[in-house]
Amino acid sequence: MTERAPLTERGYTRAPWELRWQGLDVDQLQRTESTFALSNGHIGMRGTLEEAEPRGLPGTYLNGFYEEHELPYAEAGYGYPEAGQTVVNVTDGKIIRLLVEDEPLDMRYGHATDHFRVLDFRSGTLRRETEWTSPTGRRVRVRTERLVSFTQRAVAAVRYEVEPLDGELQLVAQSDLLANEPIEPESGDPRVAAALEAPLVGEYLKAEDYRAVLVHRTRRSGLRMAAAMDHQIDTADGLRTDIAVEDDLARLTIAVDVPLGQTLRITKYLAYGWSQQRSIPAVRAQVDAALAGALQTGWDGLLAEQRRFLDQFWASADVEIDGDPELQQAVRFALFHVLQAGARGESRAIPGKGLTGPGYDGHAFWDTETFVLQLLTYTLPDAARDALRWRHTTVDTARARARQLGLRGAAFPWRSINGAECSAYWPAGTAAFHVNADIADAVVRYLDATGDIEFERQCGTELLTETARLWLSLGHHDPHGGFRIDGVTGPDEYSAVVDNNVYTNLMAQRNLRAAADSCERQPDIAETIGVNHIEVAGWREAARKMRVPYDDLLRVHPQSERFTEHATWDFAHTPATSYPLLLNYPYFDLYRKQVVKQADLVLAMHLRGDVFSLEQKRRNFAYYESLTVRDSSLSAATQSVLASECGHLELAYDYFAEAVLTDLHDLHLNVRNGLHMASLAGSWLAIVAGFGGLRDHAGTLSFQPRLPPVPQRIAFRLCYRGSQFSVEINRDSATYVLVTGKPLEITHYGEPVTVADEPTTLPLPPAEHHERPSQPAGRAPVRRQPQHDTTWHTRTARPATPAHDPASVASSP
Amino acid sequence: MTERAPLTERGYTRAPWELRWQGLDVDQLQRTESTFALSNGHIGMRGTLEEAEPRGLPGTYLNGFYEEHELPYAEAGYGYPEAGQTVVNVTDGKIIRLLVEDEPLDMRYGHATDHFRVLDFRSGTLRRETEWTSPTGRRVRVRTERLVSFTQRAVAAVRYEVEPLDGELQLVAQSDLLANEPIEPESGDPRVAAALEAPLVGEYLKAEDYRAVLVHRTRRSGLRMAAAMDHQIDTADGLRTDIAVEDDLARLTIAVDVPLGQTLRITKYLAYGWSQQRSIPAVRAQVDAALAGALQTGWDGLLAEQRRFLDQFWASADVEIDGDPELQQAVRFALFHVLQAGARGESRAIPGKGLTGPGYDGHAFWDTETFVLQLLTYTLPDAARDALRWRHTTVDTARARARQLGLRGAAFPWRSINGAECSAYWPAGTAAFHVNADIADAVVRYLDATGDIEFERQCGTELLTETARLWLSLGHHDPHGGFRIDGVTGPDEYSAVVDNNVYTNLMAQRNLRAAADSCERQPDIAETIGVNHIEVAGWREAARKMRVPYDDLLRVHPQSERFTEHATWDFAHTPATSYPLLLNYPYFDLYRKQVVKQADLVLAMHLRGDVFSLEQKRRNFAYYESLTVRDSSLSAATQSVLASECGHLELAYDYFAEAVLTDLHDLHLNVRNGLHMASLAGSWLAIVAGFGGLRDHAGTLSFQPRLPPVPQRIAFRLCYRGSQFSVEINRDSATYVLVTGKPLEITHYGEPVTVADEPTTLPLPPAEHHERPSQPAGRAPVRRQPQHDTTWHTRTARPATPAHDPASVASSP
Repeated sequence: MTERAPLTERGYTRAPWELRWQGLDVDQLQRTESTFALSNGHIGMRGTLEEAEPRGLPGTYLNGFYEEHELPYAEAGYGYPEAGQTVVNVTDGKIIRLLVEDEPLDMRYGHATDHFRVLDFRSGTLRRETEWTSPTGRRVRVRTERLVSFTQRAVAAVRYEVEPLDGELQLVAQSDLLANEPIEPESGDPRVAAALEAPLVGEYLKAEDYRAVLVHRTRRSGLRMAAAMDHQIDTADGLRTDIAVEDDLARLTIAVDVPLGQTLRITKYLAYGWSQQRSIPAVRAQVDAALAGALQTGWDGLLAEQRRFLDQFWASADVEIDGDPELQQAVRFALFHVLQAGARGESRAIPGKGLTGPGYDGHAFWDTETFVLQLLTYTLPDAARDALRWRHTTVDTARARARQLGLRGAAFPWRSINGAECSAYWPAGTAAFHVNADIADAVVRYLDATGDIEFERQCGTELLTETARLWLSLGHHDPHGGFRIDGVTGPDEYSAVVDNNVYTNLMAQRNLRAAADSCERQPDIAETIGVNHIEVAGWREAARKMRVPYDDLLRVHPQSERFTEHATWDFAHTPATSYPLLLNYPYFDLYRKQVVKQADLVLAMHLRGDVFSLEQKRRNFAYYESLTVRDSSLSAATQSVLASECGHLELAYDYFAEAVLTDLHDLHLNVRNGLHMASLAGSWLAIVAGFGGLRDHAGTLSFQPRLPPVPQRIAFRLCYRGSQFSVEINRDSATYVLVTGKPLEITHYGEPVTVADEPTTLPLPPAEHHERPSQPAGRAPVRRQPQHDTTWHTRTARPATPAHDPASVASSP
Repeated sequence: MTERAPLTERGYTRAPWELRWQGLDVDQLQRTESTFALSNGHIGMRGTLEEAEPRGLPGTYLNGFYEEHELPYAEAGYGYPEAGQTVVNVTDGKIIRLLVEDEPLDMRYGHATDHFRVLDFRSGTLRRETEWTSPTGRRVRVRTERLVSFTQRAVAAVRYEVEPLDGELQLVAQSDLLANEPIEPESGDPRVAAALEAPLVGEYLKAEDYRAVLVHRTRRSGLRMAAAMDHQIDTADGLRTDIAVEDDLARLTIAVDVPLGQTLRITKYLAYGWSQQRSIPAVRAQVDAALAGALQTGWDGLLAEQRRFLDQFWASADVEIDGDPELQQAVRFALFHVLQAGARGESRAIPGKGLTGPGYDGHAFWDTETFVLQLLTYTLPDAARDALRWRHTTVDTARARARQLGLRGAAFPWRSINGAECSAYWPAGTAAFHVNADIADAVVRYLDATGDIEFERQCGTELLTETARLWLSLGHHDPHGGFRIDGVTGPDEYSAVVDNNVYTNLMAQRNLRAAADSCERQPDIAETIGVNHIEVAGWREAARKMRVPYDDLLRVHPQSERFTEHATWDFAHTPATSYPLLLNYPYFDLYRKQVVKQADLVLAMHLRGDVFSLEQKRRNFAYYESLTVRDSSLSAATQSVLASECGHLELAYDYFAEAVLTDLHDLHLNVRNGLHMASLAGSWLAIVAGFGGLRDHAGTLSFQPRLPPVPQRIAFRLCYRGSQFSVEINRDSATYVLVTGKPLEITHYGEPVTVADEPTTLPLPPAEHHERPSQPAGRAPVRRQPQHDTTWHTRTARPATPAHDPASVASSP
């Protein structure tokens, strides 16, 4: 029944500036719909084929647009969130179905003699080309290109071209807006599945000429959205069109006989808008206006704007890795997707999956501030600012949550779309208060990197103050003479509800001090939010007395109080098939033993590296390496950063490879639900903070570059205080040079350096040899071998993803 | 619309051997249905009026008969139980409706000129007498008496008498078996409510003459039950009867004209049976046979058997408190209900509420072993044995659960009906592993008290061994030189998932040693369950190295590791209306602070009092008094025991009063759902272990009697190794005397004493004065004043329960 196209090459092809998938594999569609997703941070479209089927998991998302549903508890508790939020698959506008002489183009039937898709990192478009022979022998070539505009955030567009290859053909194209697209429920809870089965209620519809609009609202959350389409059609004479609309479907039907040598070309302009408060006419006007703008710009204009935007991004953000083409491609793929997630969010969250899939219900987590915003702060600082502004818009919700929890200040949610806590398992949700310090950390970094006083006065001081207030009420001065923070959960999700988690305490310390500093810088703002000198003194005192436990016997920092006295997980008797552990062992067992899901103390040594000696870092790193299983995608990048600092450069490169290939190799077997934004951003950190040694502890930038064994050269670019500069790391030296803006003071291995227009080249200290730390049995990262294939852009290259079980990547030694 | 009977006296009346409620208060019906419940441990019938309405929460239960339902989780986890179990309200057989000249007897209408109900602790029956005038002025007297037989465990019976008071009346009585009685759902989960809405599916029905039988099975758990009724009718001539049956209802209708001076007397015999495996004919035969036996014994015979059984019980178990009539009544009420819960369970669990209501879904908890079985071991040891046999029947389920959790041995459930874990919140369920040591403790106590070698060989050694194996796999020897048990939850539910909970560790220590001893006593049994000398040595070594944390600075035992370093709960700013705290504060906040729901370290000082010095006990007791809020009914009794030992006799008496009045005063405002068996049994412990000072640490009984201020004399009786003896405590002396059996060796304040037929009277040491410890603001127990009303059994006595908000009892100083 299923006939496959006779293609011999399949999978991703290496190229420095694009991601290309050659051939069609129906069972890989879900994965590639994620990797080929387009987004501008406001609209997200998965890389589903235009003809809608075969498909994996279709999805079109609007940032912040969700449906609510009840959260069920067999045993309820005070303060448990009652309503969950789930991102909604909104009206699908990218569908263009094709009938070739009455036979639907469906790649599961007939033959595709050529088929590829390309995500182009410089044009910001997804291209597709298919040469298809219908079951009755008619041949056509279909070329499509689509974009979600970085410059016109409400707009997406599709260019669709069909060309008969053997003689005149009757072609019928159906261009749809389809709401309530039926998809398989992801939730095991029947009530949640029911809430999401047909979440959109039609409110308004209209179609005329080539244009149509559908307005819907969600049943329970009461959000309203509009989707509109308009078309330009270039083709031979004899075109017949018809537009029809019903509740959940608007359709422009285009019928034409196309002679050999001619082409049917459809340009489809899409506009999306949503609002919690605005009326039907208002949201309709919004999309009509966006369409008008897009039509005025035109397809070529949209392409040109898109390229200009990306040229500018790459000029300020590109990373080069010479001598490892696969990772060169992967790191640009990472940068491109993080850009897509954050570029035009504009006071909406950046979800854990961006807008690439429905994973984690579309929620945003601490990953945004801790991983994604580091990248954005140093490459696209306005996007970092907008993401932090989103947090600020939710500060009232966070204050109310703190009150509900009996705390002062603001308690930001563990997972949310609209700012309200949606975590239904409090030990790994509400108790993970470090999210508040992570937000504060991102604020401090953004302020240091930009000097954006307006942001500080509008948002920053208040965010720092309310989180500092939270810490002061969460912790207490104990009679034994320290400031303790008890019963919270750190980043490592294989421990929970612990005392004095080192990461949490150190990040809270930074938060308390930053709040005090900011209030002293902006005394008038501080006064409006009720801060006085006594309160500030209390923050500084708590920060000074902050407890950081230490195990004198083992001479390491326990991740949290008494952690090192717990039993060590029995790694020797844990089969490879039992990872990730949380699917095969109860929380109670994981929590009580020394086993680490993801960098926790090691992350503290990155973000608060200023309070650990190098000797401590080395001992701690080796200790936690032996316990860390990386069942989370939030780990490899941080381990890479610390491996670099501790002199384990090979290991650091292995971890970097793992982080940057997480999605391309589907290492966690869940790319179908969306990309791992934090891991993608983390791979940038592995380069910049790891090999580049960038630290920003003291309000200035310091570097300790070192080149790992495989590449011959690594270079990256950064934005800082309105200037842009590049760092190039070679085997024995590093070169700093200003790209735009004013000269900057940085340090290189502790020595002050001025980065100016003239390149400054400085030697690197000789590499010391340190014994490679060992990981739990079967959990070492794959050893990254030097890549001999450096030929660019040849389709004969070995596919980057060989046909293997991706799980074995994570578990082979 | 609602006319109340013109009664002036309402509420409980004091009497030494009965509980009487004078008058009818519809809004108090749910409470009194619990306190007036009848049970033999196999069948339970709430004290609903015969005419079925007005009613509170009707309920008829069969021990072990439950329906299953899904347990919903918004975020599921490995090892979470998927199926819940809920006790089913089975076919109601106690209903006899009455029409007086076509007007239904309904006490909400017409006038009741007299109405009372009496639960008689010596006859073991519930009597009721109502003088009622119908809305049209017809007067009748209704007298009923019912019993659930202690001697014929499948049998219950109702005697129903109606007498016209002014002239001949036509009376129609309808005697029902009613299945799937509609009741309000208790669960907030619609799926659970749906599962329990009509849980019984009709399988067989038959009615003939005065007899009917209904067979049903549960939809999902697949349990089958039969209920049958037969009748004897004594009345004037002209009786007409009719019997009819349909799926969920069998009804005998009795119509007769009764002249003045005559009586319609109906005796209704009921039989119940259920099985997981037996066929319809088999369960039907079972109830037919039980009815045949009951009819052969007859009403008077059942009454006589019941009284003989109770005479024997009181002879071996009575407690006398001279000078406090309210508590005298209350303690007999307590003993009677614990007897009802445990007497004829016969290898079924004793649920937390007995069979008095649907509270806790009918589940059994650790309370059974730790509180109820102490009482039963020393008063009705066969019932204690049967309850432990139930645990033994579930050992395979517990072994499977241990395997699922990655542990060895057996992990008994936190809450269950059939032995499978039903706790949907693991930090306060599965993690509370102490239930396993509690079972072992009950086994050791039962073996010590009875020398029942047959039980040891059949069940005891295996229970001790499998629980010891659990501890060895739960704990570990740490490099710092101790055996630790991490990440478990102790009795106090305001802490969870802690390290080295002192109670757990000390009880595990006792468990490990007891297992070693039992295996050495029964080497052949030990061999059959695979125990060898090395394993036994491992248990002893772990017991020897067991960690018991101690705070050197504060000189108290932390309840668990680092507990005393946590912040103290802000009691001063916690309003009285915020108790119980768990309904008003999140777990995260409770867990991380020093606030104690219920005795934990204090319970350890009772059950493992052998490892604490008196000085430590006093310091610890005072420390934990200041933190313990008694939001659980499992606390006051234990605090009473330790208050006695530490010399705070007034306080001990206050706690005793709170424990024993928990249900009669409805202190937790939930008596409607059933009685608190553990608190009732605990009140006996407050007497025997508290004022009597009974300890059984070393396999012998030791006493340290002391008389609290209010009563003039306390006496109690105990069974031990086949003998019975009594202990009488006066102001300055205590007297021990054998009642039956062989003389016994005990100790009195450390001095060996032989309890023999001749009373031994020994002096009590003079009371020392100790400062009364303080409790959290507003959480001190009510001060028990000397009771001046010592008149017995007069209906003019002030009601024991004045019209006040019961909550104020718990929160007034």
